[in-house]
Amino acid sequence: MTLTSPITPDELDHLREQLPATQSVAYLNAGSFGPLPQVALDAMLEQDTYDAEFRQDVDHWDRLQQLQIGARDAISELTGVTRDQVALMHTTHEALNACLWGLDLQSGESIITTDEEHPGLLVPLRHMRHRRGTEVRTIAWSDDDTELVDRIVAAADERTRAVTLSHVSWKSGRTAPLRMIRDALPDPVRLIVDGAQSGGVFAVDPTDGWDAYSVSGQKWPCGPSGSGGLALRDPESWLPTYGAYMQVTDFTDILASPLEPTARRLEMSQEALSPLAGLAASVRWIVTEVGLQRVFAHARACNARARELLEAGGVDLTTLHGSAHLLAVDLPGADRIATELYADGYLIRSLTTERLRLSFGFWNTAAEVEGCIEALLARARA
Amino acid sequence: MTLTSPITPDELDHLREQLPATQSVAYLNAGSFGPLPQVALDAMLEQDTYDAEFRQDVDHWDRLQQLQIGARDAISELTGVTRDQVALMHTTHEALNACLWGLDLQSGESIITTDEEHPGLLVPLRHMRHRRGTEVRTIAWSDDDTELVDRIVAAADERTRAVTLSHVSWKSGRTAPLRMIRDALPDPVRLIVDGAQSGGVFAVDPTDGWDAYSVSGQKWPCGPSGSGGLALRDPESWLPTYGAYMQVTDFTDILASPLEPTARRLEMSQEALSPLAGLAASVRWIVTEVGLQRVFAHARACNARARELLEAGGVDLTTLHGSAHLLAVDLPGADRIATELYADGYLIRSLTTERLRLSFGFWNTAAEVEGCIEALLARARA
Repeated sequence: MTLTSPITPDELDHLREQLPATQSVAYLNAGSFGPLPQVALDAMLEQDTYDAEFRQDVDHWDRLQQLQIGARDAISELTGVTRDQVALMHTTHEALNACLWGLDLQSGESIITTDEEHPGLLVPLRHMRHRRGTEVRTIAWSDDDTELVDRIVAAADERTRAVTLSHVSWKSGRTAPLRMIRDALPDPVRLIVDGAQSGGVFAVDPTDGWDAYSVSGQKWPCGPSGSGGLALRDPESWLPTYGAYMQVTDFTDILASPLEPTARRLEMSQEALSPLAGLAASVRWIVTEVGLQRVFAHARACNARARELLEAGGVDLTTLHGSAHLLAVDLPGADRIATELYADGYLIRSLTTERLRLSFGFWNTAAEVEGCIEALLARARA
Repeated sequence: MTLTSPITPDELDHLREQLPATQSVAYLNAGSFGPLPQVALDAMLEQDTYDAEFRQDVDHWDRLQQLQIGARDAISELTGVTRDQVALMHTTHEALNACLWGLDLQSGESIITTDEEHPGLLVPLRHMRHRRGTEVRTIAWSDDDTELVDRIVAAADERTRAVTLSHVSWKSGRTAPLRMIRDALPDPVRLIVDGAQSGGVFAVDPTDGWDAYSVSGQKWPCGPSGSGGLALRDPESWLPTYGAYMQVTDFTDILASPLEPTARRLEMSQEALSPLAGLAASVRWIVTEVGLQRVFAHARACNARARELLEAGGVDLTTLHGSAHLLAVDLPGADRIATELYADGYLIRSLTTERLRLSFGFWNTAAEVEGCIEALLARARA
């Protein structure tokens, strides 16, 4: 059985050979961490070796700058903005914090979010609430895009400064209609997007009208942990909070200096060479060897096949969530089942004791999808 | 000629064999980056290999947690506080931002700093000034400790919330009398220390009375770039600004959750395995194989020898700054001379076009110090 995918089985074999982590297990957990391609590992080892054998030559800062440019270009490639609209980030947590604190909220102003957000967004919102008196308004996500937009609009008023949500929900795999949300909001309300489950899966479109879009390097872009970035529509409309060396332009009078006009005004020190090199290598490899359109098409084909088999296995379709690269399955004992499936050779994740999540990547074979669902059904019945 | 150091030449040879970066050049630049020991590289490669071949098994989070504990213990070892008083940081920039924003300053409150601080502190202060209306009062450092303390006291008033400065100046190598400063300040005024040029050089003493002390992993502790930490006297007296997953304790209601009581309340996501492993391995190696007392004694011996030779070479002693592990030398054409010295096999740094800085590590030989000064004198005369 093959998948209805633009990636042929032969090509799939070839791609998998370059993803060591796919060799020992059916890798269905890119929603947590993607498998690192060999080219990324090689690039990382090259920098680690330089660090060990040499550590700093006179060209060190040029080397660092080139690696930073390469990593910014990777985020640019995934989000459709220019290099100067990209700030490198260690994590999506850091990106969302930079955006939220960058708004300089006054007490009583509000931010709208949803009930499917990750702690990486919720903890920053908690701090805004306690520290700045920000009102956090949480709306329920909906399968119906119009309903979701209506709920956001109903929650907004003249003191609403931002809407912040995931492009793709980590809990349900549902996709937010960003352009509809943007069109329904007054222009000054910022749209801040957590792209942890979307950057690297499909081509992010800046004409959707978001103001800020974060990408986690270690998930779908298959880069190293500690890598990622933030794409900004208009960098100069954001104020830096946590400060770092390269955010200012006048080093003779830093306390009074103007700010860097590019997105680097939000960038903290990014001096670790290996994650920069790894992210750039990984994204370049995915974009040139696979292409984001095929990444997404293959993932959807895997999901369609999984759903088909789950339905054939008698699973109630209302317990399934997400039809693209993420498939969440409501199932009692999810924790136990995830552990057992790992022993069976399938790496998936339990989000709660009641919900499993399968992450489909461009490296997954039909046999892996079929084997995983078969094992899942068996373990669920046990 | 040998140095008046507790480290014997034989032992020095043995230590140097374990520091690959000391093989190709006379390494006199730990004030920028220390040489990575082989044990740190090995620890990093082990984690990178796990990441590449496996990326995530069911024990992944246990592995991460153990590595985080190891890295916190390294910072604990260097600063004399307990593990629970340590927050891991990617950089000293991040640590100082976390402290300054954690004060929750009101407009018109003031912070006192000095004229020898690094941009890693000055850029955050710039943002506090522009964003929060913080008054930043800059006092001139002094060779006379009493004068330095008097200047700080004279700049303080009832709206002063913190004094923040380097323990050792990156520009002049001078050491701030922390205990005298603490004793001269009212208790509520926080003492926030940039330990970039001191953590890993000598045993940092928490009884000096600082409230917060940052350590840069990649400098004197000889760890990887992107590693470091922040030691806090009283973690619960600090509010987190940038939020992250493990800062809260109630995951069922994050927006209303209490905060983690330990220093982890200030910690951002630290999910990259290799820097954690590298920092822990490096510090453990330095502490057990060398010991901080000997690290410092050896560095001072190198400095004493360098000063002796400079004086013998006719250099005006008032152009020399720092008598411990850092020696700054005022010299026109410093940029050119640093580049030429690198070609001669000596890695030092020019801080400005008028000032060179030599960083003495426990790995430097008498021959390196002597050769470097000889070359420096020759290049300066050219």
